[in-house]
Amino acid sequence: MGEGYYRWALGPDEELFPLIDFCNVACGFHAGDHNTMLKTVRSAIKHGVRIGAHPGLDDVRGFGRRKLEVTDDEVYAMALYQLGALKAIVEAEGSKVSHVKPHGMLYFIIRDDEAKMRAFMKAQTSIFGTTIPFFGLKGTPHEKVANEFGVRFIPELFCDIDYDPTGKLLGVPQSHAPTPELIGKKLDRLFSKAETIDINGEPLPLAGAQGPFTICLHSDMPTAVANVSA
Amino acid sequence: MGEGYYRWALGPDEELFPLIDFCNVACGFHAGDHNTMLKTVRSAIKHGVRIGAHPGLDDVRGFGRRKLEVTDDEVYAMALYQLGALKAIVEAEGSKVSHVKPHGMLYFIIRDDEAKMRAFMKAQTSIFGTTIPFFGLKGTPHEKVANEFGVRFIPELFCDIDYDPTGKLLGVPQSHAPTPELIGKKLDRLFSKAETIDINGEPLPLAGAQGPFTICLHSDMPTAVANVSA
Amino acid sequence: MGEGYYRWALGPDEELFPLIDFCNVACGFHAGDHNTMLKTVRSAIKHGVRIGAHPGLDDVRGFGRRKLEVTDDEVYAMALYQLGALKAIVEAEGSKVSHVKPHGMLYFIIRDDEAKMRAFMKAQTSIFGTTIPFFGLKGTPHEKVANEFGVRFIPELFCDIDYDPTGKLLGVPQSHAPTPELIGKKLDRLFSKAETIDINGEPLPLAGAQGPFTICLHSDMPTAVANVSA
Amino acid sequence: MGEGYYRWALGPDEELFPLIDFCNVACGFHAGDHNTMLKTVRSAIKHGVRIGAHPGLDDVRGFGRRKLEVTDDEVYAMALYQLGALKAIVEAEGSKVSHVKPHGMLYFIIRDDEAKMRAFMKAQTSIFGTTIPFFGLKGTPHEKVANEFGVRFIPELFCDIDYDPTGKLLGVPQSHAPTPELIGKKLDRLFSKAETIDINGEPLPLAGAQGPFTICLHSDMPTAVANVSA
Repeated sequence: MGEGYYRWALGPDEELFPLIDFCNVACGFHAGDHNTMLKTVRSAIKHGVRIGAHPGLDDVRGFGRRKLEVTDDEVYAMALYQLGALKAIVEAEGSKVSHVKPHGMLYFIIRDDEAKMRAFMKAQTSIFGTTIPFFGLKGTPHEKVANEFGVRFIPELFCDIDYDPTGKLLGVPQSHAPTPELIGKKLDRLFSKAETIDINGEPLPLAGAQGPFTICLHSDMPTAVANVSA
Repeated sequence: MGEGYYRWALGPDEELFPLIDFCNVACGFHAGDHNTMLKTVRSAIKHGVRIGAHPGLDDVRGFGRRKLEVTDDEVYAMALYQLGALKAIVEAEGSKVSHVKPHGMLYFIIRDDEAKMRAFMKAQTSIFGTTIPFFGLKGTPHEKVANEFGVRFIPELFCDIDYDPTGKLLGVPQSHAPTPELIGKKLDRLFSKAETIDINGEPLPLAGAQGPFTICLHSDMPTAVANVSA
Repeated sequence: MGEGYYRWALGPDEELFPLIDFCNVACGFHAGDHNTMLKTVRSAIKHGVRIGAHPGLDDVRGFGRRKLEVTDDEVYAMALYQLGALKAIVEAEGSKVSHVKPHGMLYFIIRDDEAKMRAFMKAQTSIFGTTIPFFGLKGTPHEKVANEFGVRFIPELFCDIDYDPTGKLLGVPQSHAPTPELIGKKLDRLFSKAETIDINGEPLPLAGAQGPFTICLHSDMPTAVANVSA
Repeated sequence: MGEGYYRWALGPDEELFPLIDFCNVACGFHAGDHNTMLKTVRSAIKHGVRIGAHPGLDDVRGFGRRKLEVTDDEVYAMALYQLGALKAIVEAEGSKVSHVKPHGMLYFIIRDDEAKMRAFMKAQTSIFGTTIPFFGLKGTPHEKVANEFGVRFIPELFCDIDYDPTGKLLGVPQSHAPTPELIGKKLDRLFSKAETIDINGEPLPLAGAQGPFTICLHSDMPTAVANVSA
C-alpha cells in the first residue's frame, strides 16, 4: 500500500483495505513519499488493517525491482532510515508498526545473502527490539538470521507471482501475469494440500504452508482487487 | 553537517567537527541521504559532538531554500519522516538526538506561521516528547509554540548571515557573504554588548543574547572553517 | 500525454489518442521520462496525432503546478533542455515537433512576465526558428512576445478548468472539477456565441474564440476520456 | 565538466578549462542539470574549449557508475534525450557540439555489447549525422559500430584510471587513486613507446597510441588540477 509517488497513484488502495487484515506500507525509497505515507497510515487505521513496514531499495526509477549492488552498511542505513520514518508516522497517528516485510529486490538481496540479512536485522532490532515479526521466505537467510536475532519469523506464501520448479520465488518481472481464477485455484490447493503450482504448471509443495503463514498479494497488478477477493 | 548528496560533498565536515560542540545533521530532504547520514552520525560521535536533527523542505533541487507552499499536514508529515529517520540512525549507533533545528525555508516558514509551527511541534513531541530542545528565533512562533508544547526553547544567534534593521533574520541568498573578520567582530560585540551589526552596518540589540543561546554557523560557506575558528 | 513517471502511469493516453488531433508531450521536468517520451511519441505517430512539446518547471514532486521562483536564465535553460530533448526523440522517430505549449506553472509564469516569455522564446526560436507555433493565452505576454519573435501564436481555449470573472485562466488546483456535461455545454456556447461560463457560472466572452483556436483538455482528470469525447 | 548537481559542485572546472582543448559536458542523467549545463557551456566557449556530449546512465544516486540493466531501447532513448538537450544548449549559445563521449557505466555497457552500441549510434547519427566523432575504446564495439555507421572513431587513452593486464579498461571504483607523478610517467611512456603501465605495474602496449588519440582525465579526482597539469 502507499506505492504512489507524489502526483501519481498506483494500486486501488481504498478498494483493497476492506478486504485485508495486514498491509505493507512503502517507505519512500522504491515508492511512497511522506505525504502518501501519512495518508496511507490514516486509511489503514480507519479500516483496522495492521500496518507493516515495506522498505525497499533507494530506486524510485526502477521501483525497487532492479538489481543494484549494495554494501552491508548501505542495507543497514536504508533499513534504519525507512523503518525509523514509518515508525514515527504510525506512532504519531496512535498505532504501532505490526511487522516488517521488505520490498522487491531488497527482499531478494537479503534472502540470498546472510551478511546483508544481518545488516537488516541489526537495523530492525535496534528500532523495534524483538517485539515485531519479520515476514519472509522459509528455508532462506530470512528465516535463519531472524531466528539468530530472536525475531519471530513468519513465512510468506505467494499466489500472484511464480515459484520456479526448485521452489525459488521469482520476482514480478520474471513471473506470469496471474488471473484471479488461477489465484483461487492455487489457494484451494494451498489450504487442502500445502502445495502450489510452479511456473511450469507443475505441483510444488510449500514448506511454509505447514504452519502459520501469510499470503502476500501485490496491489499494483491490474487485477489486484479481483486477486485479493479470490 | 552531512549536507552532501550521494556523490557530492558540501562542507568541510571533517575539519569542522573538532571545532564545535553541537551539530545539525541534514535528514535527506534538502540534502543528505541515508548513507551520508550514517557516516556523519558516526563522525559526530567519534568527535564527541552532540547531534541535532536538521530537517528541511522536500526540495533537494533548491537546497531547501526556495519558497514552497506547504500545508500544515505536509509540515507534520515531513517532520515525522525526517526526525524518525535520523533518530533511528543516531540511536542504532548508540547515541541520542540532542536537539531539533530546522533548515532553511522550513525554519522560516514555521517562524512566520504558528499553525505550521504547531504541526512541527506535534511531530517533534510525538517522537521525542519534551526531552529535547528546539533551537529557533526568539520572539517568534518558534519560541511561543515550543513553550505551548512544554518544549525547551533555546535561542539561536547568527553571525554569518544578516539581520535586517528590524531584527528579522534573512536567508543565505538575501545576506552578504561574510568574512571571518566580520564574524569575529560580531561575536565580540555579541558577548560584550548583547548586540550585533545589521545588514546595513548599524548596531542591532539581540534579545536572545541576554540568556543562554547557541550560535549557528553554516558549513557550506566557502570560508566555513575560518568562520567557525573565528 | 506521456505524463507518467517511470513505473507510474497517469492519463488514459491510449484511449485518448484516437479522439484527438494534437497532443502535448511531457518532457521530463514536471512529468515524463526518456522512456515514457519515446513510447508516447511512437504512439502519437501511430495514431497520426501531431506532437507538441509540453515543457514544465523542474518539479516532479509538485507536478510542475507549484509556484517556484525562477530567473530568466533558468527559464531559458529549462526550455532549451526540454525542447531539445523532445525534438531529438520525435525526429529520430521520423516525425516533427508540431508546436510548443508549456505546462502548468511555467505556462502561467511566462503568461505574466514578458522577460520570462522572452527567455522562453529565445530558446524556442534558437531550436525551431519560426517554423512552429506557440499555443498560449490571447492578450497576454504569450501573444505579444511570440509576435515580437515572429512566431505564430495560436490561442488556446479551456473547457475543463475555469476562468475568473475577469477572463483570467485559473490553474487546475484553483478550478472546479468539470463534468463532461458541463464541458459539452461550454463548447456549444463557445462555437455558437464565442463565449464560455466563468467560475461563478456567469457568461464570459472569449476573445480567442473569434479566430482559429485550439481547445486544451487535461489527460489527468478522472473523467478525461468522457471530457474529450464531449 | 559540469558534473555538479544543483547546489553541489564537483570538479574544479574553472581551473581546468585553461589547461584543456576538449571537454565532455555532463547532460543531466548521471550529473549536471540544465542550469549547470548552461553555465558550463558558456564557460567552455569563453575559454575556447571544444564541447563534447557526456551522456550517462539515468542514475544520479550512483553517479552513473553502478551496474544497471538497460534494454537497447532505453539506451536509444537516453542517448536521444541527453544529446538533444545538450545540442540545444550549445547551439543556442552560438557553438557546436564537437564530439560524443559517453560516461561511466554507459560507456562500458556499449563497449561490451554491440546491440547497445548500435542503439546509441542510431541516436547519435539521428541527431548529428556523421558530422562529429565518437571517442571510445579501440578494438571494442565502440570502434566497430562507429565504423559501421560511418562515424569517425577516435581512440581514448587513460592515465588516471587503470587497465588490467589484458588491456581492459577498469572503472574509477576498480582503479588505484592516481598521483600526478604516476600520470606524468605514464604519459612519457605513452609518447615514447606507445605503451602504459597496467594495474599491476607491468608495461602494457596500447594499440590506440599508434595513431591520433585523445587523453581522458577525470575532473572529479582530488588531484584533478595537478593530474591535468602533469
